[in-house]
Amino acid sequence: MIQIAVLGYGTVGSGVVEVINTNHSSINKKAGEEINIKYVLDLRDFPGDPIQEKVVHDFDIILNDPEIRIVVEVMGGVEPAYTFTKKALLAGKSVCTSNKELVARHGAELLDIARERNINYLFEASCGGGIPIIRPLNSSLTADEIDEITGILNGTTNYILTSMIQDGSEFADVLKKAQELGYAERNPEADVEGYDACRKIAILSSLAFGRQVDFEDIYTEGISNITAADIKYAKAMDMNIKLLAYSKKVGECFYAMVAPALLGPNDPLYSVNGVFNAIFVHGNVLGDAMFYGSGAGKLPTASAVVSDVVDEAKHLHRNIMSFWSSHKLELTDISNSQKRFFVRAKGDPKTELARTEEIFGTVRPVIVPELEGEYGFVTEIISEAQYKAMAERHGKVISRIRIRHS
Amino acid sequence: MIQIAVLGYGTVGSGVVEVINTNHSSINKKAGEEINIKYVLDLRDFPGDPIQEKVVHDFDIILNDPEIRIVVEVMGGVEPAYTFTKKALLAGKSVCTSNKELVARHGAELLDIARERNINYLFEASCGGGIPIIRPLNSSLTADEIDEITGILNGTTNYILTSMIQDGSEFADVLKKAQELGYAERNPEADVEGYDACRKIAILSSLAFGRQVDFEDIYTEGISNITAADIKYAKAMDMNIKLLAYSKKVGECFYAMVAPALLGPNDPLYSVNGVFNAIFVHGNVLGDAMFYGSGAGKLPTASAVVSDVVDEAKHLHRNIMSFWSSHKLELTDISNSQKRFFVRAKGDPKTELARTEEIFGTVRPVIVPELEGEYGFVTEIISEAQYKAMAERHGKVISRIRIRHS
Repeated sequence: MIQIAVLGYGTVGSGVVEVINTNHSSINKKAGEEINIKYVLDLRDFPGDPIQEKVVHDFDIILNDPEIRIVVEVMGGVEPAYTFTKKALLAGKSVCTSNKELVARHGAELLDIARERNINYLFEASCGGGIPIIRPLNSSLTADEIDEITGILNGTTNYILTSMIQDGSEFADVLKKAQELGYAERNPEADVEGYDACRKIAILSSLAFGRQVDFEDIYTEGISNITAADIKYAKAMDMNIKLLAYSKKVGECFYAMVAPALLGPNDPLYSVNGVFNAIFVHGNVLGDAMFYGSGAGKLPTASAVVSDVVDEAKHLHRNIMSFWSSHKLELTDISNSQKRFFVRAKGDPKTELARTEEIFGTVRPVIVPELEGEYGFVTEIISEAQYKAMAERHGKVISRIRIRHS
Repeated sequence: MIQIAVLGYGTVGSGVVEVINTNHSSINKKAGEEINIKYVLDLRDFPGDPIQEKVVHDFDIILNDPEIRIVVEVMGGVEPAYTFTKKALLAGKSVCTSNKELVARHGAELLDIARERNINYLFEASCGGGIPIIRPLNSSLTADEIDEITGILNGTTNYILTSMIQDGSEFADVLKKAQELGYAERNPEADVEGYDACRKIAILSSLAFGRQVDFEDIYTEGISNITAADIKYAKAMDMNIKLLAYSKKVGECFYAMVAPALLGPNDPLYSVNGVFNAIFVHGNVLGDAMFYGSGAGKLPTASAVVSDVVDEAKHLHRNIMSFWSSHKLELTDISNSQKRFFVRAKGDPKTELARTEEIFGTVRPVIVPELEGEYGFVTEIISEAQYKAMAERHGKVISRIRIRHS
């Protein structure tokens, strides 16, 4: 029997208990031994819940119990999760987590400690919820050099954008509805401003490229400026708008960015709708691959956490995670990154297009008749810096959205 | 250094050599040791090709060389691949393969031998080409009980159906074009009649359910009867037609089938087009997940084979594959399987629909004005047996296509 402890009895923590209870026989078979939850750490008590008899309030009870081999950290936030995780690993206990903030900030260090002790620090649930992506990157795509990861990594923003496209509503109205339905937090900033997706792409990029990508270095733009008018233009182009988090290796340069982007119907990410997430990966021999599923939610996230528990149970004395070096990967300034831009500008295209083409070069106009006094156009492939200079020179630009794979 | 031998220098075999040469430094890093191809077994010689110095014509040279730790079987077909694989495993050499015929027929036995000797028999490339699916089923979805796998598992038929939908052409014309482009074999039977997909879903089902699913037991229907008229009806319903290979656990019954099916735009498999493949998996806690990528092709398939080589190099003395028991899984007769059917029938819907509803119960008519003298309709959810009896009683049915997730 392998004794484990769960830190935090919130949504994910109670999901972990539920998954282990529901599928105990198949999980024990796959782990090769019975998995037993000995402790649940929480500040609260849960009278009437069968979990109550396992609840402890003091982490040291877990730390000092030599029977505990695996610690499931599902508290979220950097502290005290970081301190607890580090202590557990230093005490020779494997740890698994859904905590993207912690992994993005201290992953390299915690992986180092686990490797030195021949135990494991796993974090399948930190990116893409239930979607298997960390383990495939670590142990499936080993024949490839990964040169691109592009993900729809946040369910809240994908739900909002999908609703805006389906209903034609404005951002603020859809956000309000999403909050009422529980798909968005009362303070939605981390989701809608892209911070959540930014941490996740930092983790995925660090793993894929083998070196520390600091999330603070990633240019991040949210979806709060996307309007119903933008959606009308997207529809006119037969395109979708998604919040994409991507990192790309172009020659010796590494780019990373979180921003809304337009994509067409041939893009596998085009039809990833609602609260679903997906991660597109390009390998130099594999070509295109995509992993799709529930990016959040109690049980899907718990499914990923428990798959880490099983892997740790199977590898109690064997480190299986490829590490990322704490040596920092310097991202290239995105001002050099090249793509097409969709641009909205004030004025009448009949009189303005010639001047626009003088500045932007050949463009493809996009006209939505009901939007009077403005027009849209798609640029050639230009750099972010070029776009910025052209838009300033033009003087009548309302907004722009990047286009994927241009 | 780990010495390996490649059996067969055809498309996949030469791809394996190319992938190992192209990405040698990252592959060696991930394997933890240098991977070196010592022999290539082929009946032919390849004068002028740098591989020639490694070519041998006698398998016993490989079998009797104790330096060879991993054998890559990419010959295809059951014999002599089966004999070579069994001998290699019995000699303590791990084997990996892309050979779906062999894995479907003898997988359980070969996995048993590998497990007894604490070595590995891996076959990531046997299903879905480059798409990571065997390893995720084996080591990622371990917290779940899988109750459904539905795959677009054959690139040739998906290319043909996608072209029929895009161009409105008839099956025979598209097949001819696909043969000219090299997307279909000169003898296309294994692909278009669903035999290839059948072997792949037998492998995936055996793994997911842990017991031997015999491919001969799986009801299999190809796409050669799909017509341009069927496509017109599909478009009228805003649906797509795909060759789906699926297995499903319903209560204590296991169903498996390969057949064309209609699916709607909210289905993640709807927009898997051209030669791409995808595998949809449903777990009882994970919910929906999907794995998408190149289902065939030299380099994607070789990428999957080489990822098995890396895994075997990392686990020279440790069996990592969950086995499927050779105890046979009895599939339930599909006549009990329930779904909606799309049915085409002769006659004028104005005069015929009442009679049709007398037999089939409430139906949803589908009319394509240009198709005179016939009409279509969608049934309620009924069993295959009920459908068969109703269609016989009706007497004017032209054809039917099953509808996914009805």
